Amino acid sequence: MERLTVLKVGGAVVEDPAQLEDLLKSFTAVEGAKILVHGGGRRATKVAGELGVETQMVNGRRITNREMLDVVTMVYGGLVNKNIVAQLQALGVNAIGLTGADGNAIRAHKRPVKDVDYGFVGDVDEANGALLAKLLDCGLVPVVAPLTHDGQGNLLNTNADTMAQTVATALVNYFDVTLVYSFEKKGVLRDADDENSVIETITHEDFKQLVADGTIFEGMIPKIENALTAVDQGVKAVKITRVDNLNGGTTIKAHN
Amino acid sequence: MERLTVLKVGGAVVEDPAQLEDLLKSFTAVEGAKILVHGGGRRATKVAGELGVETQMVNGRRITNREMLDVVTMVYGGLVNKNIVAQLQALGVNAIGLTGADGNAIRAHKRPVKDVDYGFVGDVDEANGALLAKLLDCGLVPVVAPLTHDGQGNLLNTNADTMAQTVATALVNYFDVTLVYSFEKKGVLRDADDENSVIETITHEDFKQLVADGTIFEGMIPKIENALTAVDQGVKAVKITRVDNLNGGTTIKAHN
Repeated sequence: MERLTVLKVGGAVVEDPAQLEDLLKSFTAVEGAKILVHGGGRRATKVAGELGVETQMVNGRRITNREMLDVVTMVYGGLVNKNIVAQLQALGVNAIGLTGADGNAIRAHKRPVKDVDYGFVGDVDEANGALLAKLLDCGLVPVVAPLTHDGQGNLLNTNADTMAQTVATALVNYFDVTLVYSFEKKGVLRDADDENSVIETITHEDFKQLVADGTIFEGMIPKIENALTAVDQGVKAVKITRVDNLNGGTTIKAHN
Repeated sequence: MERLTVLKVGGAVVEDPAQLEDLLKSFTAVEGAKILVHGGGRRATKVAGELGVETQMVNGRRITNREMLDVVTMVYGGLVNKNIVAQLQALGVNAIGLTGADGNAIRAHKRPVKDVDYGFVGDVDEANGALLAKLLDCGLVPVVAPLTHDGQGNLLNTNADTMAQTVATALVNYFDVTLVYSFEKKGVLRDADDENSVIETITHEDFKQLVADGTIFEGMIPKIENALTAVDQGVKAVKITRVDNLNGGTTIKAHN
């Protein structure tokens, strides 16, 4: 099977012109089929403020009322996504911008209200592997914004990490899929103070031990758990690395 | 060849929830392959105002400086386009939102500065018929926002009428294309005060006579001239009508 790389980048990277330029150059250099999934970020907070829409975060998630949904639809689906697409086109990458609504690419449901009403925030149900495979087959490079839909006419603000994982697993029957989560470090570090202490590979076995001995802790634990879930669902490898280091970084896979 | 309908609707229709609902129902009922091209409209002016970006119109065209380009990218490419896509999905239409940058669908160049510097306004060069035919072939229904790109990384604010015409003519080798321009009347009227005096057909010959006898005048003249140009370029028919009257209206074609 042909190789497919699904690269997830955070909102901070796409909002900074210099970092964005580096990202797009790295992404352009990736061989084979590819998909870019981008986060949202603080630009929505800025635009919301200018429009008089109050930003309220709970547990790191944006409360998304109707007005805030309009803002994130404008910023993530319009401003951020379309500028990435236009810049990739200039680099010779045949990018096509998508939200989950486009081509019914990613379906979600509105998060049920328990302690907190997050409003128009989506929990992902499934990605449309057949549609994405067809677009890739046409030589297109999907650029996915962190928005989904519920099939009833509503757009939903959605976590880009989850979207990237769902997209990657939906394509395992069509491609040899590598899922790359970019973050600010070169990889998962053995010593947090030493950028050169990147752990090359983490398997299920390694993970247990690295958690037990305290090498992996806090926010990195769910990140790698998610990566191992993706691997269990047929993704060949999950990489965690910096966008300028796509050939290096930490690779999470089932076995050594 | 299969039939294709390219429907262009103005910004005023897509901004009014009741009119938009009618439009989307009419569009859903259109049989065969189809493409929706939507205008921009006053929502951009409203958002611009709230963001402190001044709106300046010259000859009915929006002067589009960098800040205004961001606004129209947000409003046309994000808010308007993605909400139409989500609503069409709810009606069972497999819509996919596109700007001219997506899949390199429609290329343009920045309008040269003569008397007026329109800023980031695009004059259309060409539509990518092969790409659009592939998407249609996948059962997708493109929904096109009035934005193009120049291939050098810049998005451009672009006239939706021209985009619709370019899209229609780019597809004449793949489909039997009907181009529909919707406006507020049931068709081109013989008597401006009588909604039931719709002229059924206008050919080149008819047009000359209708202009000579004053039946067609002012803004309707360039509209029909453009329609006749599309017909000369292989579009089977151009219709001018109201969105609730897609089976009626005025049909512009080469010969009777």
